[in-house]
Amino acid sequence: MKERILAETERLFWKYGVRSVTMEDIAKQLGISKKTIYQHFTDKEEILYQVMLDKMVKNQSEMDCMPAKMANPIEEILSVMTMIQKQADQVNPNFLIDIRRYYPKAYLLFRQYKEQFIVQSILENIQNGVSLGLYRSDVNPSIMARLRVEQIELAFNCDIFPTNEYSMLEIQRELMHHFVRGLLTEKGFTIYNEHVNTKNEYNQSVYEKK
Amino acid sequence: MKERILAETERLFWKYGVRSVTMEDIAKQLGISKKTIYQHFTDKEEILYQVMLDKMVKNQSEMDCMPAKMANPIEEILSVMTMIQKQADQVNPNFLIDIRRYYPKAYLLFRQYKEQFIVQSILENIQNGVSLGLYRSDVNPSIMARLRVEQIELAFNCDIFPTNEYSMLEIQRELMHHFVRGLLTEKGFTIYNEHVNTKNEYNQSVYEKK
Repeated sequence: MKERILAETERLFWKYGVRSVTMEDIAKQLGISKKTIYQHFTDKEEILYQVMLDKMVKNQSEMDCMPAKMANPIEEILSVMTMIQKQADQVNPNFLIDIRRYYPKAYLLFRQYKEQFIVQSILENIQNGVSLGLYRSDVNPSIMARLRVEQIELAFNCDIFPTNEYSMLEIQRELMHHFVRGLLTEKGFTIYNEHVNTKNEYNQSVYEKK
Repeated sequence: MKERILAETERLFWKYGVRSVTMEDIAKQLGISKKTIYQHFTDKEEILYQVMLDKMVKNQSEMDCMPAKMANPIEEILSVMTMIQKQADQVNPNFLIDIRRYYPKAYLLFRQYKEQFIVQSILENIQNGVSLGLYRSDVNPSIMARLRVEQIELAFNCDIFPTNEYSMLEIQRELMHHFVRGLLTEKGFTIYNEHVNTKNEYNQSVYEKK
């Protein structure tokens, strides 16, 4: 039952944000009583916390499996970012806004995850790309890693990117390709161009050869 | 006297942020009484508002004079950004943080300026660069313009870039060059490389040829 509650609540949070989803909604959706939910969780914030924790563990193990399959850091960073994009596109922008404003414990968890895991994994990717001559040797990897992480969150900010003007997918794709291109050396560009022109998922017609 | 108060207060705000500077400090610094200040301004927020308004008008007229002298959009964007960088380096990061948190009227002014003037001027630069074949034709100019403006603010965020780890100048320069490089076509790279390699102010030894 606990797993069912978590799975269904996650779906509701992604779709509507956190604040507008009530315990009543969750119970109704599952066809159970609120009492049953309270047997497993003390309140909505506890469910949120557990949903986020599970998601982070799942993401982390997915990413851990990735590098082995990847031919090079450029392919790796584009794959990881495409994964993040796909997830971001399913999430109501209110989700992150709600967490930042109203759920400090969950927000702290997100920030810690971001700091310890996402920044770290992008940092390693950049260092790896520099050592292979695919990224410029004059970048500051830690500034760039932090920039990239903030860009993911930036896309969720409706004050900056009003949802009626831009789609989440469009923003994330635009920021991702701009970020990677800003790092590349000439050698890197060759690999990047091959990659975006052979993979349909990157919409080859849009990304012209440099 | 009004001008003297504004000039001195601006200097104090830049150096220490807004919150920690008192009317007492301003009076002391000018060798005048607080009463004299209150003859010209109702409170600190009014001085702040006027300081920011003056600065924005000054910036705008400086930027308006620029494009005529500039050979191309790449030189233009690097010059404008270098100007912003130099200013940013003189400002205590607390300045913008204080305004965002405690001075809503001044923050609204800053946001309006950002939206109407800075975003607009970057947007025009990008459109101009695209039409000249110096920037990629597949960028979304309005997403990129908004990204750039947010990056300027991002550099002031001590949670993201702790002041004991990075200097403001280092962050701004890193973000600026990464931003411009992410836009360039091959034709654009040729001009960019010439520009960063001939102007000492961009520290030619650091920016390797692509």
